[in-house]
Amino acid sequence: MTQTLSALAIAEKLLACESITPAVGPVFDCLAGLLEPLGFTCHRFIVGEAPDGPVENCFAIRKGPEGSPHFAFAGHLDVVPPGEGWTSAPFLPERRGELLYGRGAVDMKGSIASMIAAVQDIPAEAGTISFIITGDEEGPAIYGTRALIDLIRQLGEEPDLCLVGEPTSVNRLGDMMKVGRRGSVNIFLEVEGVQGHVAYPHLADNPVPKLVAMLAELDGLHLDDGTEWFQPSNLEITEIEVGNPAHNVIPAKAKARISIRFNDLHTGKALGDQVIAIAKKHGGTAQPVISGESFLTPPGDFSQMIADAVEAELGVVPEASTSGGTSDARFLKDLCPVIEFGLVNATMHKRDEAVAVDDLEALARIYRRVTLAALA
Amino acid sequence: MTQTLSALAIAEKLLACESITPAVGPVFDCLAGLLEPLGFTCHRFIVGEAPDGPVENCFAIRKGPEGSPHFAFAGHLDVVPPGEGWTSAPFLPERRGELLYGRGAVDMKGSIASMIAAVQDIPAEAGTISFIITGDEEGPAIYGTRALIDLIRQLGEEPDLCLVGEPTSVNRLGDMMKVGRRGSVNIFLEVEGVQGHVAYPHLADNPVPKLVAMLAELDGLHLDDGTEWFQPSNLEITEIEVGNPAHNVIPAKAKARISIRFNDLHTGKALGDQVIAIAKKHGGTAQPVISGESFLTPPGDFSQMIADAVEAELGVVPEASTSGGTSDARFLKDLCPVIEFGLVNATMHKRDEAVAVDDLEALARIYRRVTLAALA
Repeated sequence: MTQTLSALAIAEKLLACESITPAVGPVFDCLAGLLEPLGFTCHRFIVGEAPDGPVENCFAIRKGPEGSPHFAFAGHLDVVPPGEGWTSAPFLPERRGELLYGRGAVDMKGSIASMIAAVQDIPAEAGTISFIITGDEEGPAIYGTRALIDLIRQLGEEPDLCLVGEPTSVNRLGDMMKVGRRGSVNIFLEVEGVQGHVAYPHLADNPVPKLVAMLAELDGLHLDDGTEWFQPSNLEITEIEVGNPAHNVIPAKAKARISIRFNDLHTGKALGDQVIAIAKKHGGTAQPVISGESFLTPPGDFSQMIADAVEAELGVVPEASTSGGTSDARFLKDLCPVIEFGLVNATMHKRDEAVAVDDLEALARIYRRVTLAALA
Repeated sequence: MTQTLSALAIAEKLLACESITPAVGPVFDCLAGLLEPLGFTCHRFIVGEAPDGPVENCFAIRKGPEGSPHFAFAGHLDVVPPGEGWTSAPFLPERRGELLYGRGAVDMKGSIASMIAAVQDIPAEAGTISFIITGDEEGPAIYGTRALIDLIRQLGEEPDLCLVGEPTSVNRLGDMMKVGRRGSVNIFLEVEGVQGHVAYPHLADNPVPKLVAMLAELDGLHLDDGTEWFQPSNLEITEIEVGNPAHNVIPAKAKARISIRFNDLHTGKALGDQVIAIAKKHGGTAQPVISGESFLTPPGDFSQMIADAVEAELGVVPEASTSGGTSDARFLKDLCPVIEFGLVNATMHKRDEAVAVDDLEALARIYRRVTLAALA
């Protein structure tokens, strides 16, 4: 067994590796350098081409005794671009007071540091532990966790439970975990007409009124009233584009885009089919692009393990929420029950992203408790 | 009296002066050079600045005896840009076979040539004749006929009847005159909202559904059933613009544009006010821009003069129509009854614009008959 490192020390190493999405190379070298001494076997691979790749992924696993439970941590080492105006260099982690600054401090190299710190002194005999780490979560997420899931299935190493380290805490560490996320589908609508002069409308076929009627019907859809765990599904019209600069011309084409965030009463496919039928009724077409299906890990044993660990360390009971955007949990839910729990998200994607050093160490202790409970 | 010129010879002179809208200078020198020897006084003036100007206008008048009738021809010497692909140079008029080619051949230097040819041998004693000629009809028409009307009013020289030489004939010379035109108003619609993330719609205010509802109501408006002389008024949605490239963002603003072509049951102002009220109801704003009010010179003495002249020369009875786009008649109708009659419009605004030489001379004879009838 190697020397034990603090979560802070590990976070500093990871934050020092520039890894703007999509990420490859040094930050994964760093990860492997931390996990291999702990007995993990690192399956690293690079997939994809520009502009969405190349992407590096790493499935690191340390097997326990035959038949023992398998607990997985999941996360990403890529970060969003730092942008301008940082007080210190975004890829030179700097501790000022109680905070550690650097791009990825909370989203989510800090969480990964806490995961690694958490498992350092858990013996292999306790059970199988793995890390499902991608370099492509902040980007299109085409070559990331989906490719990792394919590998895990090929290896026959599906975990029993998976904890994603997204920064789910809102006001203080431990106040929220995500037991589900809504699904997301963007649908591209189009109506073709026949261009003409506004003075001679009988010689033209204006596509815009058809699109307007289509959008009015879509906007009037009542998808559901929400569920015990989810808020109601929601449809937003996010774009309409006709692109006709001429005041006296009836345009030839009209396009729009809608975005539906949906709970587990729907699938992206069924919603897409419903919109296609409405579009067709109004003389148009619809092209759904499913970003992710919803997932729900109904509160139960797994969420209780996390709640117990948080309460033991911090005296807080985390809320089990399904709010917010999507994460890689939308893919991981196909492997096993998955819950997201991590640092405070206040500074994520912002300049001067920072994590409280105390939170890093507390999260490591919480993750350790969860791991031990999951393997018990 | 100067030597009589053919309409062809006059057209060749005018077509040789490049005068892409807005026009100033040489083409008006040419006009004055033709009219002054016939006893006309030319009131030439230049107004406006780039990009919509400068524009030259000419009000040429030859007064008859005190109290005699005043008949006016109106037209424009500016032309649309020639574009590419001409067989001969667009501003070097070329006769090939029975046709004379050149930009403006039918729209409408050819008609102006026929007007000048028509009045050459009409003595001043017959009555007052004038030419209301602008260099700004094909462009924004801000500094053109409106400024001429101001001048005519200042001079106290309002005509009794006015014939606009727009190319109104469709299949053969003389088959159609325009006794009216619909009015036109473009209205710019806008709804402001609050930008946000599609995953958190309660923190945003999507302006698009409001705009869609507004447009659906506008598209459903029944303006009228047409009149004895006019087709029904018509509203077209010509543009919608949201301009939101991000799939996960609720946009802050949504804009649209509609175009209404309306008959004499409406005014641009009243339609604008109606749309403003509908826009307001849906939380938006509307900005009407009136291009022109409708005009109607109900078939009667004036149209009969034209019909008689056409029938006498060509054996054809012209249809009295109110179809099509707008012309400067929308302004001239404030001075006196106005009708449009001119050459065949098949090649207007196209490459290889051309007029039949026989049509030029026939139109001159028709215009002469109309002038004599109007002054009788």
